[in-house]
Amino acid sequence: MERLAVIDMGSNSWRLVVYGYEPGAWWSLTDEIREATRVGAGMGEERTLKPEPMDRALHTAYVFAAFCRATGIERVDAVATSAIREAANGGELLRSIHQRTGLDPRVVSGREEAWYGYLAIANSTTLADGFGIDLGGGSVQVMRLEGRQLEAAESLPLGTVRVSEAFLPGEKAPAKAMRALRRHVSKALEGLGWWEGGGRLAGIGGTIRNLATVAEKRLEYPDLGVQGFELTRDQLAELIELLASRPASKRGSVRGVKPDRGDVILGGALVLAAAMEVGGFDGIEVSEAGLREGVFFEGLLSDRDPPLLDDVRRESVENLAHRYDTDTRHVDHVAKLSVEVLDGLGAAGLHDGNPTDRELLSAACLLHDIGMSIDYDDHHRHSHYLILNAGLPGFTPRELVLIGAIARYHRKGEPEVSELGDLAEKGDGERLRLLCGVIRLAEQLERSRDQSVASVAVRAEDGVVKLEPDAGGDPTVAIWSARRNAGLLASALGREVEITA
Amino acid sequence: MERLAVIDMGSNSWRLVVYGYEPGAWWSLTDEIREATRVGAGMGEERTLKPEPMDRALHTAYVFAAFCRATGIERVDAVATSAIREAANGGELLRSIHQRTGLDPRVVSGREEAWYGYLAIANSTTLADGFGIDLGGGSVQVMRLEGRQLEAAESLPLGTVRVSEAFLPGEKAPAKAMRALRRHVSKALEGLGWWEGGGRLAGIGGTIRNLATVAEKRLEYPDLGVQGFELTRDQLAELIELLASRPASKRGSVRGVKPDRGDVILGGALVLAAAMEVGGFDGIEVSEAGLREGVFFEGLLSDRDPPLLDDVRRESVENLAHRYDTDTRHVDHVAKLSVEVLDGLGAAGLHDGNPTDRELLSAACLLHDIGMSIDYDDHHRHSHYLILNAGLPGFTPRELVLIGAIARYHRKGEPEVSELGDLAEKGDGERLRLLCGVIRLAEQLERSRDQSVASVAVRAEDGVVKLEPDAGGDPTVAIWSARRNAGLLASALGREVEITA
Repeated sequence: MERLAVIDMGSNSWRLVVYGYEPGAWWSLTDEIREATRVGAGMGEERTLKPEPMDRALHTAYVFAAFCRATGIERVDAVATSAIREAANGGELLRSIHQRTGLDPRVVSGREEAWYGYLAIANSTTLADGFGIDLGGGSVQVMRLEGRQLEAAESLPLGTVRVSEAFLPGEKAPAKAMRALRRHVSKALEGLGWWEGGGRLAGIGGTIRNLATVAEKRLEYPDLGVQGFELTRDQLAELIELLASRPASKRGSVRGVKPDRGDVILGGALVLAAAMEVGGFDGIEVSEAGLREGVFFEGLLSDRDPPLLDDVRRESVENLAHRYDTDTRHVDHVAKLSVEVLDGLGAAGLHDGNPTDRELLSAACLLHDIGMSIDYDDHHRHSHYLILNAGLPGFTPRELVLIGAIARYHRKGEPEVSELGDLAEKGDGERLRLLCGVIRLAEQLERSRDQSVASVAVRAEDGVVKLEPDAGGDPTVAIWSARRNAGLLASALGREVEITA
Repeated sequence: MERLAVIDMGSNSWRLVVYGYEPGAWWSLTDEIREATRVGAGMGEERTLKPEPMDRALHTAYVFAAFCRATGIERVDAVATSAIREAANGGELLRSIHQRTGLDPRVVSGREEAWYGYLAIANSTTLADGFGIDLGGGSVQVMRLEGRQLEAAESLPLGTVRVSEAFLPGEKAPAKAMRALRRHVSKALEGLGWWEGGGRLAGIGGTIRNLATVAEKRLEYPDLGVQGFELTRDQLAELIELLASRPASKRGSVRGVKPDRGDVILGGALVLAAAMEVGGFDGIEVSEAGLREGVFFEGLLSDRDPPLLDDVRRESVENLAHRYDTDTRHVDHVAKLSVEVLDGLGAAGLHDGNPTDRELLSAACLLHDIGMSIDYDDHHRHSHYLILNAGLPGFTPRELVLIGAIARYHRKGEPEVSELGDLAEKGDGERLRLLCGVIRLAEQLERSRDQSVASVAVRAEDGVVKLEPDAGGDPTVAIWSARRNAGLLASALGREVEITA
């Protein structure tokens, strides 16, 4: 495993994130320390870092450097953004940090910061044509994507700490001040000339993540993190109302709000609301990635220009599968047999052939056994737990719970649409039973994990569905097991299912 | 990883269990196929295997053998017990099996069967002096242990399938027939002369596990499996009443009953009730281990006589820690620092010094990071999940949830006694907060995982508890992190906690 530490020296919080990875195989966050350093606090119009925030920053850098030394991490990329970039005395702080800690932070320009935001978004969502926003403590980066390329980008001095200090300095949030803040943001964005037209919008940054968490808690949403959550304009308006009704010092105790963001989250919410209004967006797709992932991906994918994953959904699934001990030949084969059965049912008019079902089924097949790394007993439940907890960037929360449920029911139990909770859409109960019925049979046809059933044909006649395994090797276990596990598919199809020998 | 497959050819169910292990490091069940072969069905007084059960058995053996071939398992130990042992035509079945499948099952004597049951019990519970019972489909093995040695053992023809066919052949369970069954069992046990005096009793076998599951479901018990669950005589009496009130064909649908045991579970419950009554036992401690583990342990611990783990509780913890990637030096050091703090608090009169707290804290320390094998994010919650799901033979369910909760709260969040549900005892809320406060600090004193804080001394004076780290290396991260995480211990102690530099 190789390791890279990225230190994100933001205007609000500083974060040390350690990534472990094997190039071409998988990557994963392996350690993280966050400190609400608030280095940009009180900079005022003269844009100078104040002594106390500088002390906090220096001490945080010292601790982060000590951590890297102690844990033997040799590659450290420390990145300073807007507060330090803009401060008249930013260079002074960086020199002190270098002298005291040995770290050598680089200051990224607004354009570079937007570039990293773009890499984070394009590598953690399916956004190809649309807009992105990175809402930071000091600055906001906005971007337009076309065909997954960055077509336009700008960094604007509208970060949460900054606008909060300028427009909402007191305990209260007067309506007039909030309007002024929004107008200020709107004017800056309208000036760009290209932040308009609506469509898809994806967002990153601590404030957006935190707003999404609050919205999810209010919806009594399953606890899946905020990756892929869509925050609507209406929900955001409600959150603003809720936050504005409390004094600044109490906003940190709203359910879901990170206490150390309490005093600036309203300002951030207003920036976002103005940005959505000006751009004509009805909602924003939230990603948990951030500047630090942008920096990481630039290194991981340095052989590509731009450094983008080929297919975010596929690579999310493969990354998760490879993080756990997976018998690749087995799971690939279960996916192959599953898709053969589903396609066969489609040809027989017993499935509508929609490609999303195929993709979700396939993803679930590749992940159905990851729970074996926890324990053989109940490994189907463990796979479900791992999928839901790790998340799959590029998939919506509903798709994630569907994939999790299909993996869960690859053996034992009766799938119920209630698994999907409020995320269920019309027809999901039948969809789930059918896809679970298929994976369960495919898994049994590959029960001895030796690809002894090379492929399977489907014939439907006289109300009976016949599955005809084409045996490459000895299919004894496969046929014995499949016959014991055909009940779910039969009940999903409302027909008898026969496994021919 | 080495692998051994054990095939348990019981009178009721047959089971193929694959164990993976690294000698001296860890072991784990890695695959399992169960089939309700019911080879002993309908043997009657003449004790001959009937053609249909023999066919089922032969086919099951064929599938199991095909599975071992297909998955490349070379070491297979197939063990036949009472039904085949006693059958006039048992040898005929075994010859057919050998010819058709290549398997070479060995028939174990009643005494050997009891020996394996003893090994299963002594290696999965803390029973040193007391009694054990293995309730099978054909026979029952009873044993007496002294100082963890097997002092007396007997195999009796009182298995669930057997007594059910003899005493409860119909749909109904007449009170008279049930009394006759119990009397029959009582007489056989009284005849031994040593099944008496009460004390601790541990039990294994599918019927006992299944009865425990039903009892747990009725108690709305947390879903932790049945390992270590104590089934009381009163609970058993209730279960008997519940089962006897339904026809045999409906007993399989009682919540928790395995459907294919429905027709014999009442007979088994009556055997157990009689055994507990005759022996004077108030309850039975259930173990999930079985004959197959006895066979496995005999091989794993072949250098010992008898083949026993030194300390079941300690080895459970170590086995679990070693199954996941664990930074052994780190977790050992967190355990050392935690125990130093707890002992220091004891010396200062702030903890009563009871050794169980020390042991549970230590176990939680060794396991607190196993969740990192799932994901760094929320790894404290993952550790909790893994501990509760894997279980820790030798610990009671209450101890298990305490260990899980201490590991859960080694970082983030406020431990609540409600974590323990109905298992909580008086004082557990305070106990949990204190132990979590200690592990949280110890973890932070070892935050950089380099043992830079070699040890820690505790001084209590003027209502302030001072922790004085003795730094071997650079304690920057440790002190910074510990100061940020002293709140829980301070609140548990009701005193200020200072970390001196």
